[in-house]
Amino acid sequence: MITYNPKDWFTFIFRFHKADTLRKLAPLIAGICFYCWVILLLELHIFKLGESSHVKQITSMHTLLSFVISMLLVFRTNTAYDRWWEGRKMWGSLVNNSRNLAIKINSMLKGEEMAHRSFFRKAIPLYASVLAHHLHAESTRLALDETEHPELKTIDTSRHIPNQVASLIFQRVNLLYEEGKIKGDQLIVLNNELQSFTDICGACERIKNTPIPFSYSVFIKKFIFFYVMTLPFSFAISLGYLAIPVVGFIFYVLASLELIAEEIEDPFGGDENDLPMNKMASNIKKHVAEIIG
Amino acid sequence: MITYNPKDWFTFIFRFHKADTLRKLAPLIAGICFYCWVILLLELHIFKLGESSHVKQITSMHTLLSFVISMLLVFRTNTAYDRWWEGRKMWGSLVNNSRNLAIKINSMLKGEEMAHRSFFRKAIPLYASVLAHHLHAESTRLALDETEHPELKTIDTSRHIPNQVASLIFQRVNLLYEEGKIKGDQLIVLNNELQSFTDICGACERIKNTPIPFSYSVFIKKFIFFYVMTLPFSFAISLGYLAIPVVGFIFYVLASLELIAEEIEDPFGGDENDLPMNKMASNIKKHVAEIIG
Amino acid sequence: MITYNPKDWFTFIFRFHKADTLRKLAPLIAGICFYCWVILLLELHIFKLGESSHVKQITSMHTLLSFVISMLLVFRTNTAYDRWWEGRKMWGSLVNNSRNLAIKINSMLKGEEMAHRSFFRKAIPLYASVLAHHLHAESTRLALDETEHPELKTIDTSRHIPNQVASLIFQRVNLLYEEGKIKGDQLIVLNNELQSFTDICGACERIKNTPIPFSYSVFIKKFIFFYVMTLPFSFAISLGYLAIPVVGFIFYVLASLELIAEEIEDPFGGDENDLPMNKMASNIKKHVAEIIG
Amino acid sequence: MITYNPKDWFTFIFRFHKADTLRKLAPLIAGICFYCWVILLLELHIFKLGESSHVKQITSMHTLLSFVISMLLVFRTNTAYDRWWEGRKMWGSLVNNSRNLAIKINSMLKGEEMAHRSFFRKAIPLYASVLAHHLHAESTRLALDETEHPELKTIDTSRHIPNQVASLIFQRVNLLYEEGKIKGDQLIVLNNELQSFTDICGACERIKNTPIPFSYSVFIKKFIFFYVMTLPFSFAISLGYLAIPVVGFIFYVLASLELIAEEIEDPFGGDENDLPMNKMASNIKKHVAEIIG
Amino acid sequence: MITYNPKDWFTFIFRFHKADTLRKLAPLIAGICFYCWVILLLELHIFKLGESSHVKQITSMHTLLSFVISMLLVFRTNTAYDRWWEGRKMWGSLVNNSRNLAIKINSMLKGEEMAHRSFFRKAIPLYASVLAHHLHAESTRLALDETEHPELKTIDTSRHIPNQVASLIFQRVNLLYEEGKIKGDQLIVLNNELQSFTDICGACERIKNTPIPFSYSVFIKKFIFFYVMTLPFSFAISLGYLAIPVVGFIFYVLASLELIAEEIEDPFGGDENDLPMNKMASNIKKHVAEIIG
Repeated sequence: MITYNPKDWFTFIFRFHKADTLRKLAPLIAGICFYCWVILLLELHIFKLGESSHVKQITSMHTLLSFVISMLLVFRTNTAYDRWWEGRKMWGSLVNNSRNLAIKINSMLKGEEMAHRSFFRKAIPLYASVLAHHLHAESTRLALDETEHPELKTIDTSRHIPNQVASLIFQRVNLLYEEGKIKGDQLIVLNNELQSFTDICGACERIKNTPIPFSYSVFIKKFIFFYVMTLPFSFAISLGYLAIPVVGFIFYVLASLELIAEEIEDPFGGDENDLPMNKMASNIKKHVAEIIG
Repeated sequence: MITYNPKDWFTFIFRFHKADTLRKLAPLIAGICFYCWVILLLELHIFKLGESSHVKQITSMHTLLSFVISMLLVFRTNTAYDRWWEGRKMWGSLVNNSRNLAIKINSMLKGEEMAHRSFFRKAIPLYASVLAHHLHAESTRLALDETEHPELKTIDTSRHIPNQVASLIFQRVNLLYEEGKIKGDQLIVLNNELQSFTDICGACERIKNTPIPFSYSVFIKKFIFFYVMTLPFSFAISLGYLAIPVVGFIFYVLASLELIAEEIEDPFGGDENDLPMNKMASNIKKHVAEIIG
Repeated sequence: MITYNPKDWFTFIFRFHKADTLRKLAPLIAGICFYCWVILLLELHIFKLGESSHVKQITSMHTLLSFVISMLLVFRTNTAYDRWWEGRKMWGSLVNNSRNLAIKINSMLKGEEMAHRSFFRKAIPLYASVLAHHLHAESTRLALDETEHPELKTIDTSRHIPNQVASLIFQRVNLLYEEGKIKGDQLIVLNNELQSFTDICGACERIKNTPIPFSYSVFIKKFIFFYVMTLPFSFAISLGYLAIPVVGFIFYVLASLELIAEEIEDPFGGDENDLPMNKMASNIKKHVAEIIG
Repeated sequence: MITYNPKDWFTFIFRFHKADTLRKLAPLIAGICFYCWVILLLELHIFKLGESSHVKQITSMHTLLSFVISMLLVFRTNTAYDRWWEGRKMWGSLVNNSRNLAIKINSMLKGEEMAHRSFFRKAIPLYASVLAHHLHAESTRLALDETEHPELKTIDTSRHIPNQVASLIFQRVNLLYEEGKIKGDQLIVLNNELQSFTDICGACERIKNTPIPFSYSVFIKKFIFFYVMTLPFSFAISLGYLAIPVVGFIFYVLASLELIAEEIEDPFGGDENDLPMNKMASNIKKHVAEIIG
Repeated sequence: MITYNPKDWFTFIFRFHKADTLRKLAPLIAGICFYCWVILLLELHIFKLGESSHVKQITSMHTLLSFVISMLLVFRTNTAYDRWWEGRKMWGSLVNNSRNLAIKINSMLKGEEMAHRSFFRKAIPLYASVLAHHLHAESTRLALDETEHPELKTIDTSRHIPNQVASLIFQRVNLLYEEGKIKGDQLIVLNNELQSFTDICGACERIKNTPIPFSYSVFIKKFIFFYVMTLPFSFAISLGYLAIPVVGFIFYVLASLELIAEEIEDPFGGDENDLPMNKMASNIKKHVAEIIG
């Protein structure tokens, strides 16, 4: 994730950051401009279409569909952002529950229980770091894929690490309860935090392994492609050579929105805008160590 | 469900996947193009309407209504996607609760309680698989239908299987409590997971048996139909033979959105975009077996 | 509620179902078309306005306002649908809680407690059916009305039946607790379901007795009325006799959205699209009987 | 709050209710029409601008901005409505929790505990009525204002009444627990309702004392003002004297949306559309008396 | 935060408050107007472009993109407002939980436990004030930044103050439990409020340290910049010198929305529209003192 100052307009407008869609799309925009120039040559110099040509009226199709395409892109933007923000919320919740569990365990365990204290000081932040590792794995992304993945076979037979860690933590708490070191009321008080770990893991897995339905993804890309590809037909006549930058700019806007949405809809990857899970896991480690001390 | 890489634009644009609406709509698009050609012949060659004809101005109606139709399609898209995503969330929650229940039961039951351990190792994933089966059934979709369905009579008298399984699990936990094998505090700690199963089942049934109100469904389809059917009148004059692909493309866009919405608003069917419930149930089985071991 | 197959386009487009807005609006559409014809006669034959008349430019007002009217109708559609869906969720929650309560009671009560078992087998589904009856009543709709309703006087002094049933159920559970037939931990486990009944009843009453603010309802209707009434002025000139079906169609679209919204914003009435509360109550009865058996 | 029948179109369109924005805006609309007439005189008769004047093209600015203004008004409408509906939900929740608390207390307290029963019969509805009073007070609206309000000084030193009532109720329940009249499990069962009162009070205070950010409020009003003030420049030329009613109508539409939003964003005032808190409080009183009887 | 009366239109329209975007943008608007004047001179007097120039048609690009830019600004506005409102909700929740904790502690602790009562009277409001201080700190904003910040080094090694306070409060409650001054059931009843503090702190930190993804921020600013910079090309021809105020006004509208969104998306800063955390913390102090007295 890139931390930035949103009020610094100058940098935003004139620098070309690595994560900037203008940089990523540059070759494609150049291609579209070239295509537009070919159409222009054909229409103006080969077929010599004039202002009264029917081709010029294709623009009315673009106007009618411009609402639909804007709406679709907003739908895409909203759902992608919601997934990203939900992922962030889940990790925020992991931070909260790790802290609360540490605060509670620290109060409940007597000072002399060094072995148990030390266990929790390690195990709580361990959950965050194995979860980060688990979410980066390709096998997690493909967990719901019904087709065979022979290349991932060895992983398929291995165990689910976050579940193992959650299980160890719960067993330890239950042991403390059975040994009478924490009482029943305290077990109930610890329950929320204990079950939250697995809930958070499951929610992150859901975001990771379920992209928006395939049909929408196909449809939006096909729609943008046809929409931009037909723009030069009418613009060549009404705008002349100005059609080239204009079509390039429209393509930049539409494709950028789709491109950013693709990047942020899986917030657990390694893209520039993705969540800094390792940083968060190390923050959890630091805070838990401060609390259980 | 189809697992895919959203960044592979080339495939999306040029291949025609089985779930692609362009493929499904191809015959209808052809029909619309033919209809458009007929209108064109009538207007241009039989009635010989010119540029000044009033018919050409019908396009102003399409412009005024293009906002309304876009908004409606976005409403349709949003509600359909929300239902699909809520269905996914419910199954994600089933995964979480199955895991948490397994983790808790595993800690609470002594190692020697082989019979009880074995019961839960089977019963927890059983819930997921009977729920998947239950949601695929036609009788579930029609559960709120007030008209008679003589063809489903035999099913109507049968019992609600997920409820039976949930009841068995709860009875077993209560038995453990009454035998003193788990204590009262532990019963309270298990309660969340136990009641979640029936809540999830009910939420999935709700999505399955309650489509968006009939009136909206009728209205949207009628509106798209009239809208597209009147397009050629004005476009024939302003666009000439170009009206044929233009109307075809507009129909493709509008009908695709409705078609995808229809498919995903019931995420528990057997369509390409529907949720892979059997895969999820088998994942739950694998993970529970890992935990209770 | 009408259960339907959303993929059957042909039926949707060509049949005129009782709940179809086209059928309900038919007389009004005819009236608007007649009004439009009168305007047309006046403008074209009495005042003989030509293409250069200022009246023709009124269309620019309609274009500017077409965004606002679309947005408003979508706001209306969204809020109405949200209320309908929230109502459905509440009843879904009633189903879940009835089932869960039955499952828990069935496990906790010994087999020989026939009287208590029989009480719950009757009382749980009774709540659903008295709630259905309560929500159908006119007095429930007017519960927040500050004006006097002498015609409903007798009802005003009667008791709130769902509260009475919820109270009976809670008293029975408390009695079981005090007699030692269920223990304290079990009472805590039952608490969620017990308090959910009154929460559901209150949420349904809220939807029933609080329509969207009066000002919005007035404003949307006035706006649609003026918008459609001024359409023929400019369309008569640009479209000639074609203005009649065009204005009729625009009115059909705008009024349909408002009409459907009116119908579904109160999901507990007796309209075609309203929730099948009696069917749901009888489903609850069937499932509870299966569980407590 | 005004209770109405949403299906009665005739009344909505032709009567001018006190809460109707058309009535409230009438003088302003007249003023705008007069301003428009002045502009018209200047342009047509003093400066004698013709169809080819650049002034006529200002309309393209209005078209470009018409999307932005519609979107903004919808944002305004949505946030205002959400606040109003959240306020309604909070009071609905107060109704539910009052009823549930009464149901539980009634079951748990023995019949002979007349003093305690009588306390709760009075104290539960008392909370609703002091909350209604608290939310009507000007000091509640200004609770977060950092500037000095010497005119409210005496109020500032007084106590927070709803907190006092909530405190009394909790003390009484705790007393019952310490006297052994309710057991620990029952205390836990009562906890949800007890803490909900203060949560509801806080949520209502939040809605009351935090309007949408000042900057949005200023910007929307400035934007509507400039937008409408510049409309007559171009409309005077294209529409002639028809510009007067057209500009008036556009102003009516835009200003109405802002006006309704202002009224409903604080649902706890004394406006026509505000929530009938006193009616709700008296309903709670009636229902609690029925239950605890 | 500025407390204001939303119904006072006159002030809103004609005064220029410090937080008014018109005031902040004034120099930029002047710059844009100057740029527009240069373009105008070039087109009209140097290149002498006429009405038939292709440049004039660039306006069709602006029309097509006006939907997209409006949608994007609304997306921006909605997400910024949601963050601001979520921040407000979190602090509202802090108020509620502080009050509830005070009410419960006050009932549970005997009157003679002066030391404990005094501890909670200080510690509960202390949490709010250290949280306010924590959220104002620059180190909190940069908590997820993966780059080095040598200038903040000393802060990095210091402890997380809100966690320390939450830990102290929980330890004290646990001590009361172990000394038998509160019972197990009462500990369970206190648990919700105790764990809410850390949850609220985490949620506020999330809003503070995670702005909307960098890519969106860059894209929206670049898009507005290019959009406004290309407007004068076509407007110079169609509007003449009127293009200068028109372009200035369009820039004011688009940039204002972005500017307000930037300001409110971090509700915990020191901007005019930000939340009055110190005022809220002092209100909590006052109310807790009233309750525990």
